[in-house]
Amino acid sequence: MKKIINDPSNVVSEMVDGLVRAYPQYLTQIDGTEAVVRTNKDSMKGKVGLISGGGSGHEPAHAGYVGQGMLSAAVCGQVFTSPTPDQIYEAIKAVDQGQGVFCIVKNYSGDVMNFDMAKDLAEADGIDVKSVVVDDDIAVKDSLYTQGRRGVAGTVFVHKILGAAADQGATLDEIETLANEVVKNIKTIGVALSAATNPEVGKPGFELKSDEIEYGVGIHSEPGYRREKIKPSKELVDELVGKLNDEMHLDKNKKYAVLVNGMGATPLMEQYVFSHDLLNKLDEFGIKPDFMRVGNYLTSIDMAGLSLTIFEIKDDKWLNYLNYPVKTIAWN
Amino acid sequence: MKKIINDPSNVVSEMVDGLVRAYPQYLTQIDGTEAVVRTNKDSMKGKVGLISGGGSGHEPAHAGYVGQGMLSAAVCGQVFTSPTPDQIYEAIKAVDQGQGVFCIVKNYSGDVMNFDMAKDLAEADGIDVKSVVVDDDIAVKDSLYTQGRRGVAGTVFVHKILGAAADQGATLDEIETLANEVVKNIKTIGVALSAATNPEVGKPGFELKSDEIEYGVGIHSEPGYRREKIKPSKELVDELVGKLNDEMHLDKNKKYAVLVNGMGATPLMEQYVFSHDLLNKLDEFGIKPDFMRVGNYLTSIDMAGLSLTIFEIKDDKWLNYLNYPVKTIAWN
Repeated sequence: MKKIINDPSNVVSEMVDGLVRAYPQYLTQIDGTEAVVRTNKDSMKGKVGLISGGGSGHEPAHAGYVGQGMLSAAVCGQVFTSPTPDQIYEAIKAVDQGQGVFCIVKNYSGDVMNFDMAKDLAEADGIDVKSVVVDDDIAVKDSLYTQGRRGVAGTVFVHKILGAAADQGATLDEIETLANEVVKNIKTIGVALSAATNPEVGKPGFELKSDEIEYGVGIHSEPGYRREKIKPSKELVDELVGKLNDEMHLDKNKKYAVLVNGMGATPLMEQYVFSHDLLNKLDEFGIKPDFMRVGNYLTSIDMAGLSLTIFEIKDDKWLNYLNYPVKTIAWN
Repeated sequence: MKKIINDPSNVVSEMVDGLVRAYPQYLTQIDGTEAVVRTNKDSMKGKVGLISGGGSGHEPAHAGYVGQGMLSAAVCGQVFTSPTPDQIYEAIKAVDQGQGVFCIVKNYSGDVMNFDMAKDLAEADGIDVKSVVVDDDIAVKDSLYTQGRRGVAGTVFVHKILGAAADQGATLDEIETLANEVVKNIKTIGVALSAATNPEVGKPGFELKSDEIEYGVGIHSEPGYRREKIKPSKELVDELVGKLNDEMHLDKNKKYAVLVNGMGATPLMEQYVFSHDLLNKLDEFGIKPDFMRVGNYLTSIDMAGLSLTIFEIKDDKWLNYLNYPVKTIAWN
């Protein structure tokens, strides 16, 4: 393992410290935790608090999305490990303004359980807490750490949409309704060229041969659905769009937002080439995305590979939410 | 070589196509070239045009910095290859508004020569063109493709500062004076954990052992100044800050902007841990940066490693320029 770190067991505490000190205008660490909250407290006043989090290793998710118009706080667990209920509970208390708090949880059993426990703790304090579980990854049903489908890069669209709604004064109930509607329409699938190396483990989560790829790998190196020789980008697009189309029946009369998401070690060069092939493929369907982003939005440490998210925009208001201005480190 | 591409000889044309089609609100391709110009032409009216460019492989540089408040256009050469004079000339013509055009050139012999030739072509058309050569890399003097010092990640600060000045109506002469002053105060040094693989070459620019790093490697895999076993982040910080301090004599009574720049395959996790150690080290000097960014700003395809840029802010106006709002893909 060749990494720019110190003691592997201190990676998360040092990472969070580096992050909040590099960006004090956006982030403040919540005392005694590895959770971060908006520095601009005024921007939260009178509004529903919005929290996300999970295991670390997916940077810039989720701390990079904390700021006006997006998340109120993010809870950073140990690498690939759910944050503890007490840390989530502290984040809930730090953002509550009397309007309630909404949690965006990726579908992993540990995350779901710990966010639920934190919710119980907060409700005992009289704080209203609701949540949504994001399960956008269509690759496999049930997985190493998940019942049902995994929550992956599409989660960032959920941050963006709910963040804009909260900033515009949506109530906790309205955000819950919106969240449930939005999550149903976000689908993601990925391909890995290599596995991530968790610093505390010291070796990659799995090994691929020098000419091999795996479709549908999870963001913690959970198994995918097929391993084969690497193909040209154009054929990777065919595979991934094909799977998404089976699921959501792409239709030229509908509107879509698209996210091409690098997994950490795949350069933008490859992500843009993939985007070129993707846009050609969508052209064949008569589709031009109404919204698109390309970059490292929700990664798997140093995994090489990318994921493709397609989000069917059923309500024009959702498009306004996607375009709503924000002040965060990683979304502009 | 395992990459998400098609034919290696089409990487740049497909990449530029993917980029402009993913972000039509920011970028428009200049006909017959692989150069991109601001879509928002109105934002350039009455102002000096600002151009940068160079070989591709450094994404998001430079196209990611095209937009109001930053660059007017960027010219994308083949991978690690200077753009041709005719492409640069087309970009100059596309952005000229009668106020002249300023070019930001990284110090590589081919880039300097081709930008000069483009300038001659444009001046024959009656367009005033001036330029600055950025040579921020303190690692070595003279290099594989460079007389003097190489131009690397500090170039992004030059884009930002001059972009803000141009947007506020600075004249061509004022921008030239500012550029020369700013460039003198930007110093960068890096460390590589692996080399980049140019798709047309098919193998890494050099090989490091599994526990080995090299200091001072260039962004096209030019040799650095020392190879040794990997060390903890804290000690890498000592080495890089030590070299920068020898050069610029860090002083707690001065103001500084800092850029921690990932080379393409190094995850944010490591960049934030490095930032933690860096901020501790600067604390020892009594220095708190007045401005800081961490992320993949000017990469070397899929190289693992990072560079550290320190910029002495000699004029508070420069800090305002760094904070001036922009609309680009990669700087927010």
